[in-house]
Amino acid sequence: MPNTYKAGWKPDPRLPLPIYRQIEQYVQGRIRSGEWSIGMKLPPQRALAEAFGVNRSTVVTAMEVLMAEGWIEGRGRGGTRVIGIPDERVRRTMNLPDWNAYVEEGAHYPNLPMIQRINRLEFDRDIIRLGTGELSPELLPQEQIRELFASLAKRPVSLGYEQPQGDEELRRLLSRELSRQGIQASPSAILIVSGALQALQLISAGLLERQSAILLEKPSYLYSIHAFQSAGMKLVGLPVDEGGLRLSELERCWRTYRASMLYTIPTFHNPTGTVMSESRRQQLLTLCETIGLPVLEDGAYQELWLDREPPAPLKSRDEHGIVLHVGTMSKAVSPGLRIGWVVGPEPVIERLADIKMQTDYGSSSLSQQAAKMWFASGMHLPHLEHIGKRLRERRDAMLALLDAHWSDIADWSRPEGGFYVWVSLRSPIPVQRLFNQALKHGILLNPGVLYDRSAVRQLRLSYAYASLAELEHALKLLPQLIRSR
Amino acid sequence: MPNTYKAGWKPDPRLPLPIYRQIEQYVQGRIRSGEWSIGMKLPPQRALAEAFGVNRSTVVTAMEVLMAEGWIEGRGRGGTRVIGIPDERVRRTMNLPDWNAYVEEGAHYPNLPMIQRINRLEFDRDIIRLGTGELSPELLPQEQIRELFASLAKRPVSLGYEQPQGDEELRRLLSRELSRQGIQASPSAILIVSGALQALQLISAGLLERQSAILLEKPSYLYSIHAFQSAGMKLVGLPVDEGGLRLSELERCWRTYRASMLYTIPTFHNPTGTVMSESRRQQLLTLCETIGLPVLEDGAYQELWLDREPPAPLKSRDEHGIVLHVGTMSKAVSPGLRIGWVVGPEPVIERLADIKMQTDYGSSSLSQQAAKMWFASGMHLPHLEHIGKRLRERRDAMLALLDAHWSDIADWSRPEGGFYVWVSLRSPIPVQRLFNQALKHGILLNPGVLYDRSAVRQLRLSYAYASLAELEHALKLLPQLIRSR
Ligand SMILES: Cc1ncc(COP(=O)(O)O)c(C=O)c1O
Ligand SMILES: Cc1ncc(COP(=O)(O)O)c(C=O)c1O
Repeated sequence: MPNTYKAGWKPDPRLPLPIYRQIEQYVQGRIRSGEWSIGMKLPPQRALAEAFGVNRSTVVTAMEVLMAEGWIEGRGRGGTRVIGIPDERVRRTMNLPDWNAYVEEGAHYPNLPMIQRINRLEFDRDIIRLGTGELSPELLPQEQIRELFASLAKRPVSLGYEQPQGDEELRRLLSRELSRQGIQASPSAILIVSGALQALQLISAGLLERQSAILLEKPSYLYSIHAFQSAGMKLVGLPVDEGGLRLSELERCWRTYRASMLYTIPTFHNPTGTVMSESRRQQLLTLCETIGLPVLEDGAYQELWLDREPPAPLKSRDEHGIVLHVGTMSKAVSPGLRIGWVVGPEPVIERLADIKMQTDYGSSSLSQQAAKMWFASGMHLPHLEHIGKRLRERRDAMLALLDAHWSDIADWSRPEGGFYVWVSLRSPIPVQRLFNQALKHGILLNPGVLYDRSAVRQLRLSYAYASLAELEHALKLLPQLIRSR
Repeated sequence: MPNTYKAGWKPDPRLPLPIYRQIEQYVQGRIRSGEWSIGMKLPPQRALAEAFGVNRSTVVTAMEVLMAEGWIEGRGRGGTRVIGIPDERVRRTMNLPDWNAYVEEGAHYPNLPMIQRINRLEFDRDIIRLGTGELSPELLPQEQIRELFASLAKRPVSLGYEQPQGDEELRRLLSRELSRQGIQASPSAILIVSGALQALQLISAGLLERQSAILLEKPSYLYSIHAFQSAGMKLVGLPVDEGGLRLSELERCWRTYRASMLYTIPTFHNPTGTVMSESRRQQLLTLCETIGLPVLEDGAYQELWLDREPPAPLKSRDEHGIVLHVGTMSKAVSPGLRIGWVVGPEPVIERLADIKMQTDYGSSSLSQQAAKMWFASGMHLPHLEHIGKRLRERRDAMLALLDAHWSDIADWSRPEGGFYVWVSLRSPIPVQRLFNQALKHGILLNPGVLYDRSAVRQLRLSYAYASLAELEHALKLLPQLIRSR
């Protein structure tokens, strides 16, 4: 249960029934309908009081009656839980399924509680999102997308199921876009997916045996999602220096763990912002060609450079088809489109397309059409230039604020692109407490532990989302919270 | 490899290089880039000749040279396969990954070869799709969706990541829509998904242990996809009569297999068209409440009635929250939108939302906005009425054609809604041969074995997709093929 609760209902003071009785009946209704199922933990009384717009004591009264009548029970620190309908007949003849057991037994891992909270809190209107990996709404191409809608309104739209590999015209356009990045990909070697995350999911379901080991940078984006772990994969973290992941370790770990794949974010790494150097890229490929280790390259941030163009993607140097390259429209254009792609050998692409058909029958055709028009229109490059400028200002503002207010408590490096500054505090901090304290001040943080369990002193700050005023406010306030521990 | 091949390239007769040499170089290029990876089976020579627009003998010449040079090898009936780059250095120092092994070892089951072919052939322009479970393009609400685009162009669009459970306004609108079907669902008890298929996927990953047994009708839609089997579930088929699945068997199988869930399509079943009777629905719920068996109700076709309104969904009678209800816009409005929903107890919905976030970060926000406008606009009911009329004409035409041309060779029942007529041939037919023969005549069939391995004499015919002229042509021709075996 979230800490904030959206009831979509409020007691009505004009009714003849006392407020606490109205609440009682509301709760009974939820339990009767089964929406509040047996064993479910109720939202905290504070959250209920807030959602209903009443005093906490009114909620307490209602809860006491419900407890006395046998609808719910208090279990001390375990919170209040639903018992069910206190009706003799129901109790005697029925043996209702225990949904809580189902929720707990499902094979897929739940997100970390902290991530679940972040995922929800991000939609609180008043919160300052200091770690969000997403362009600020003001940087999204609102106007342009509306133009696209206007032209979509004028021509026949495709509303049916799409081809397994995705719209052919879109794949042709992507092939052209990718060649700008140095990647030669035939349309038949491209799969359209619903975002890069889905590509990772399909690869783990379609190409890897359970119990396979995946090598990856430590920290990494991949630790913050459970796609691979839930599919039974083991993640083996490799140490990183300022030139990217260390190759000596790569070979050693590949041997030790008999790894099946390397996952890497070589350009503007999430969360550290690191760029793998030219020479490291070349050596990495040579090594992987020698040991036969396929590379999964996540190019989510490739186009988001601020100072100078980064080295070309690994895929552009891949002469023997050992690299699967993943890209997305989420970071530079719009996450809501849910459009990404995978480039790889045709048998691999066909296999992934087949699994995609079993998973969701292809990506939204509206999104695919919007993507098509986006790339066909020539809007992409001017848009990249525009957001590049804005992100540069934002990064510089963040770095200046860090210089001014954080230099005695933390270290960080200067990202040349992407969204993130990886901040290391000089002394360890109780992350959960800092997270909660910041939240009390309306600031949402992404602690380093989400990306590496041992990164207890790190924070991932993002200059992409919050407004400049919010960045200033938050980056001035946080050091006070940190110091006053 | 598909039987048809799209190369996106053709030899150029104006070049000084002979055609067969151009083909050689093309193949070498694909192999050099790794898009045609080591071990990959080449498309059949016939398909290549067609794709390149040349004589088959030209392809044969090119292939012989490539074989002699060591790029590819022929393996008799195993087809021609890629060896790699015939370069000493490459062969000596490299140990390239074997993608074919990856493709074969991935944990997720591939689609049946026949389904893979159907998925691809459906996009051949000239084919008559006699089994497709999708509205004909002429029945899709083209005009209305274009109106939606025009209004989307006039207001701020949401382009960011969406909330875990999906857009709140859309969930409110769905709650209203569902109440028309008798289902009382709070917005907090609804999850937006990318089509009903994804809902099934999330439920199998999120609520069920590996090795769980799922009871379902036999035949069923679920046999034609591998979502559940790939997640390690066992499917246990239950016999069906004209009133729906048989309850005596349900209880017995639940006990024998210790089943975790019942999956059912009570209304206009896919593929049989059966409607579960009023009384069966009530008995089913009572039984499941007694034995504690959760029900997964697939309501994909609920609104597509032709003669009279069907009994209300199981969920509308579910007083204790034992039913998870799945719905979709695919069958009545547009599959390309990829918008569906799950209704269930809040803890279940939250669990599924969390997994969805890990799977694809939510559904396309364009699609969600289009769906919102669709339901807000009041277009839905008039559209349902319109397609109801058209589908009735189509069904009646199909039944008349069956009466006229099939009555001596087959039996079928008269569907009262949905898309399908389930035809049983009186004598067994070699399905694969009939499928191929029909294909030669440009007719794409969905054989019964896709929905039940033992349904070797059945075909799923759909009156939703092909035009009336196509239906007539195909339904006259097929009996000739069947008789002339
Ligand atoms: C490195 C990396 N890959 C993939 C993704 C997922 O992107 P998408 O929205 O395309 O699924 C993200 C988003 O945070 C990311 O940082
Ligand atoms: C019974 C049934 N459920 C679900 C689906 C999948 O629908 P969607 O397009 O919403 O994923 C289909 C489509 O064929 C179906 O027949």
